[in-house]
Amino acid sequence: MTHDTTEVSFPDLNRLVRPRSIVIVGASDRPGSLGRRTVDNLLHASEFGGDTYLVNPGRDAIDGHPCHPDVASLPAAPDVAVIAIPAGGVLDALEQCAAKGIRYAIVLTSGFGEAGDEGRAQQERMRRIAAETGLRIYGPNCPGLTNLADRIGMTFSPAFADDKRTGPIGIATQGGGLGRNLIQAAERGAGAALWASLGNAVDLDVADFVHHMAGDDQIKVIVTLMEGVRDGRRLLAAFRAAAEAGKPVVTLKVGHSEYGVRAIQSHTANLAGSAEVNSAVFAQLGVVEVDDIDELMDVAWLLARATPPPRTRVAVFSGSGGACVMAADMVGAAGLELAEFAPETTAALREVLPGFAAVDNPVDVTAAVIPDPGLMDRALGLVAADPYVDLVLLPIPLDYGDHSALGSRAMAEAQSRTSTPLLPVWMSDKRGPGWQVLADAGFCSPGSLGKAVLAVRRWADHGRRAATDPGPAPLLLRGAGPTSVPLPAVDTEPKAKAWLAAAGIAVPEGVPAGSADQAREAARELRGRLVLKVVSPDLPHKSDVGGVIVGIEGPDAAAEAWDRIVASASPHGRVEGVLVERMAPDGVDMLVGVHRDPVYGHLITVGLGGVHVELFRDVQRRLLPLDRRTAVEMLDGLRCRPLLEGMRGAPRHDVEGLVDLLLTVSDLVSRHADELGELDLNPVRVRPAGSPGPTVLALDALVVRR
Amino acid sequence: MTHDTTEVSFPDLNRLVRPRSIVIVGASDRPGSLGRRTVDNLLHASEFGGDTYLVNPGRDAIDGHPCHPDVASLPAAPDVAVIAIPAGGVLDALEQCAAKGIRYAIVLTSGFGEAGDEGRAQQERMRRIAAETGLRIYGPNCPGLTNLADRIGMTFSPAFADDKRTGPIGIATQGGGLGRNLIQAAERGAGAALWASLGNAVDLDVADFVHHMAGDDQIKVIVTLMEGVRDGRRLLAAFRAAAEAGKPVVTLKVGHSEYGVRAIQSHTANLAGSAEVNSAVFAQLGVVEVDDIDELMDVAWLLARATPPPRTRVAVFSGSGGACVMAADMVGAAGLELAEFAPETTAALREVLPGFAAVDNPVDVTAAVIPDPGLMDRALGLVAADPYVDLVLLPIPLDYGDHSALGSRAMAEAQSRTSTPLLPVWMSDKRGPGWQVLADAGFCSPGSLGKAVLAVRRWADHGRRAATDPGPAPLLLRGAGPTSVPLPAVDTEPKAKAWLAAAGIAVPEGVPAGSADQAREAARELRGRLVLKVVSPDLPHKSDVGGVIVGIEGPDAAAEAWDRIVASASPHGRVEGVLVERMAPDGVDMLVGVHRDPVYGHLITVGLGGVHVELFRDVQRRLLPLDRRTAVEMLDGLRCRPLLEGMRGAPRHDVEGLVDLLLTVSDLVSRHADELGELDLNPVRVRPAGSPGPTVLALDALVVRR
Repeated sequence: MTHDTTEVSFPDLNRLVRPRSIVIVGASDRPGSLGRRTVDNLLHASEFGGDTYLVNPGRDAIDGHPCHPDVASLPAAPDVAVIAIPAGGVLDALEQCAAKGIRYAIVLTSGFGEAGDEGRAQQERMRRIAAETGLRIYGPNCPGLTNLADRIGMTFSPAFADDKRTGPIGIATQGGGLGRNLIQAAERGAGAALWASLGNAVDLDVADFVHHMAGDDQIKVIVTLMEGVRDGRRLLAAFRAAAEAGKPVVTLKVGHSEYGVRAIQSHTANLAGSAEVNSAVFAQLGVVEVDDIDELMDVAWLLARATPPPRTRVAVFSGSGGACVMAADMVGAAGLELAEFAPETTAALREVLPGFAAVDNPVDVTAAVIPDPGLMDRALGLVAADPYVDLVLLPIPLDYGDHSALGSRAMAEAQSRTSTPLLPVWMSDKRGPGWQVLADAGFCSPGSLGKAVLAVRRWADHGRRAATDPGPAPLLLRGAGPTSVPLPAVDTEPKAKAWLAAAGIAVPEGVPAGSADQAREAARELRGRLVLKVVSPDLPHKSDVGGVIVGIEGPDAAAEAWDRIVASASPHGRVEGVLVERMAPDGVDMLVGVHRDPVYGHLITVGLGGVHVELFRDVQRRLLPLDRRTAVEMLDGLRCRPLLEGMRGAPRHDVEGLVDLLLTVSDLVSRHADELGELDLNPVRVRPAGSPGPTVLALDALVVRR
Repeated sequence: MTHDTTEVSFPDLNRLVRPRSIVIVGASDRPGSLGRRTVDNLLHASEFGGDTYLVNPGRDAIDGHPCHPDVASLPAAPDVAVIAIPAGGVLDALEQCAAKGIRYAIVLTSGFGEAGDEGRAQQERMRRIAAETGLRIYGPNCPGLTNLADRIGMTFSPAFADDKRTGPIGIATQGGGLGRNLIQAAERGAGAALWASLGNAVDLDVADFVHHMAGDDQIKVIVTLMEGVRDGRRLLAAFRAAAEAGKPVVTLKVGHSEYGVRAIQSHTANLAGSAEVNSAVFAQLGVVEVDDIDELMDVAWLLARATPPPRTRVAVFSGSGGACVMAADMVGAAGLELAEFAPETTAALREVLPGFAAVDNPVDVTAAVIPDPGLMDRALGLVAADPYVDLVLLPIPLDYGDHSALGSRAMAEAQSRTSTPLLPVWMSDKRGPGWQVLADAGFCSPGSLGKAVLAVRRWADHGRRAATDPGPAPLLLRGAGPTSVPLPAVDTEPKAKAWLAAAGIAVPEGVPAGSADQAREAARELRGRLVLKVVSPDLPHKSDVGGVIVGIEGPDAAAEAWDRIVASASPHGRVEGVLVERMAPDGVDMLVGVHRDPVYGHLITVGLGGVHVELFRDVQRRLLPLDRRTAVEMLDGLRCRPLLEGMRGAPRHDVEGLVDLLLTVSDLVSRHADELGELDLNPVRVRPAGSPGPTVLALDALVVRR
């Protein structure tokens, strides 16, 4: 089966995130200990209204709260157990939790999967406890679960007490250090509602929390930060749930280079997966992918602040002419659109602003205007109210102390009166009072102008995509199911092509020749310019062994080519004969390929074929099965698209035929998903639309079984 | 003449930057006024040991310093006059300065070129004063000149008093606001020696200061931030002087998009110039170009900190496993090399660090080690001392308060004992004491991990380039000089090809045909597959008017094609006939073009030809004339380079022949530089090396006069 996600199920995590009662196993009063810090967070830094139980066999009470000797002796089964005891006792405690009927356990303790063979064995036992008892385990080796919106800190992190800024962003991370980095973005105004930092994720993982957040009303935007993807199908299903709930997902998936992939393996023992495949899959599901950790909160904050429209027109407004120019330049370089103001806006700005200000977009109000709140507020209000402005970028190149603070206050004022998002960008390394005013007003300034423009571009792209997206990808439900049609013999080019032809994919006219004489005969029959190719189940890369000769004309030349090919290829593998084909008329050579990704299943690739794919990597990838809209979108995403359309007076090529071929391949693969590993049609020749004969032909075909 | 920079001369600015005496014209005691602030900076916030004169006709003294009524009545001619009077009196004051024998005037006053027609006229008069009297004018409409290293503030900026951090970076900017942004990078540890912010730059401009900084011992790295380039030749000569002095130049040139180009024109009335051309020229001169303003100081600081080696191997060292993985991943994605430690390093790290730390590169010392100065210091020292490590990247994902401060202190300690540059990256938005420790220790943390890796890549690229660069580009001295050989008639393809052939560039065999019969005759003579092309001085784009037919075989077909071409093209322009050419054998189609840039002169372009240039823009550009090394470098920089080398068993193409063609074109253009505007050879067919007949042929040729 390819991608049937219907059977994926997710646990209800509501009572884990918002428990009515919690037990801390390993509560302690020893300063600095895991248990002490956890007690501090839950008893003193949280606003938890439910029941809290403490387990510590050596104490009667901690901070006035009575202690119980073990989980078994608790008077009731709390919703969540937070485990903060040394590794040696954890499994026993978990078994007690399960026996007691506790539904969720958060294991803070480390010393498991990350700690050698013994730790791995312990972790495997932990996994079995979860699987066998139904106890859902969060962790181990993690800082815990931080519910910021409700102020419930099931964490040992001493920073929790200061995590006061909240916002509608839900964060699911694997590592704790980088997750805390995201929480510290609160410093510049970006608050979160919930942070799940899953550590070794023996049971619950990022996908479970994405699914939870999709249904959590306190969360509008979901952020994930991952090294590895353990179960692609569950992750996709969770992302799909977020899309169905209309909640954007912003993700950073590490593992874009060999170094990263290797480091991931030694850090988490997770498979990194192919970055290209991850990116293709994320894009297909409307997930916004970013390249750096600060960009997660830049984009998430902006998406939480305002829903991006189908078309984004940007206004630039600054007190610095130089910053105006630089911002406008970057807006253009990022492929974004600079708004053209309505004439009334320009006229009103001219009336309001001093004569030396620039009233077109970008608006340079000059430094003189920044500390004049009335003027700033009016001018910024006019720009934000312009019907052709969808976002106002406010580059602030300098910290000018109190002057800047006045400017920041004017921005906050203006934002309070408009639904058009304002994006101030504090570009200076100096953080004066103006910086603090912005953060306290709930703005989240990106760290540089470049990052700000990048965030706007991602925001705008998401809006454009959402506008054309008819809804959550239906394709994920169209898997072929576990019963698969048997794949015929396709181990040589003629057999593979016969299989393709039977499915309706055109291939060149060809005749297999078992001898030089048969080649001569085939040449008589086929006429015209010919190509001869070795037929062998052992030699998928025919050119490399001298197994292909093109441009042959006439029977004698064909016979001679047969001999040469067989002589050249025979030392390298079994030769069953030579395929004599008529050379296809001119056209654009594309490649169409399918491969089976270990994490996500079958993906299809289309791109410019021939040698260009290696040089320019102009390809588009999608999960199979495809629908027509997605197939069209793939072609539209290629840089070589104009070539198909017909450049420099060349005719339009049969783009529709290529779309049909993609859909036929998708069907074919779905039917044989259990057996099919790889399918390469390279090149696929796409001829001018309306040419006589087939206009889309698979000139070569290679099928590899799983 | 093309690019003869020998005659470019630069003023000696030493006495402007380090004057022995200064007069403030318009010294004032009115709080907040331009003159007051300038007096404050020079008298109270500077450490200026020379003579200061004040000019104010309405005061006897200011702050105890006597005032003179005007410049004329000064007892001596100071080195520099700082002009801080209203615009109306500036020209008169400048004339007095010139008459007095003052060499340099810094005009702070605005209301000139940026202020409408009247202002522009005044500024033109100012320019004439400079040209006629030899008085060198800095400004107007600028914040002044800030000598940080010697603490001489010839500026009205109230921030000067706080500009205490200095470093070996020289900064030349056009705008003041963005320039001040660079100075505020001092907050995170990057100090400057000198900041020239040139405003309208009526006389002295960025090039003059780059040239000065090239010879200024207090400066190791030069930063420029520009919107427009007024005189490309002078800028190149200044960059060349910096290269000769071994000082890297880091530059941000705004104007990468249409929006930016338009905004620049309305902001400064400067021409933005073509971004592609600017980038090509900068690269050719070894100038490091960046994309965002914060990246200027990221890279400049790193270059000032350590000279990059020919090959850079990066170590990653952090207390966060997640940050280690992310950094290693980004290092790889940026095309950088992760160091492989010497076995002794790994062994020693294993001995020093706790068992759960990762001792390969990336080194994850775990959070436990960060606040242990002894351990941190030893481990970091081992990594920095590894013979295969050229730079240590230290990602710090979190602010952990005093713990982080201990870590930062250990980094400063370790840096004090190694010449290997350490680059801490403070990734958190929270700035605790650890952040301040880094800045005070003279580290300059980039604003994000991505920006840090980008800075390292640019640093490494500069090192690699410097290692292969045999010295400052000699090509700039190889201009053909003002006497140019007359260009023959080249207004049609046959004439242009005849001219090329005479210079040694191969073209296909061809015969011009004035009639269908002549075409028939030509076909008999040439034989084989033919191409017929319209000959017309009016129709440079022959295909667009049906003026090209390929694949013609035989005399009859040629005659018929002649008729069709003439019928199709005639309505569009004068038709002189049809060129009948033998079609060239297969090969790789490249394009070679020359155009004359209004700022820099003639540039040559080479890239993959045909339709691919529009799709993939795989081109390399250089200033002419070329030397062989640069021509080879151009080809090496193309993504399509493997195609020329022969991919998938294809033979190697005649790369040397293509280099020869580039050099021939370079010579040809140099000889005709006065008359030649544009030259397009597209395609140039490059055939397998050693093929019979010419292996590099210009299949089409278009010449446009200036």
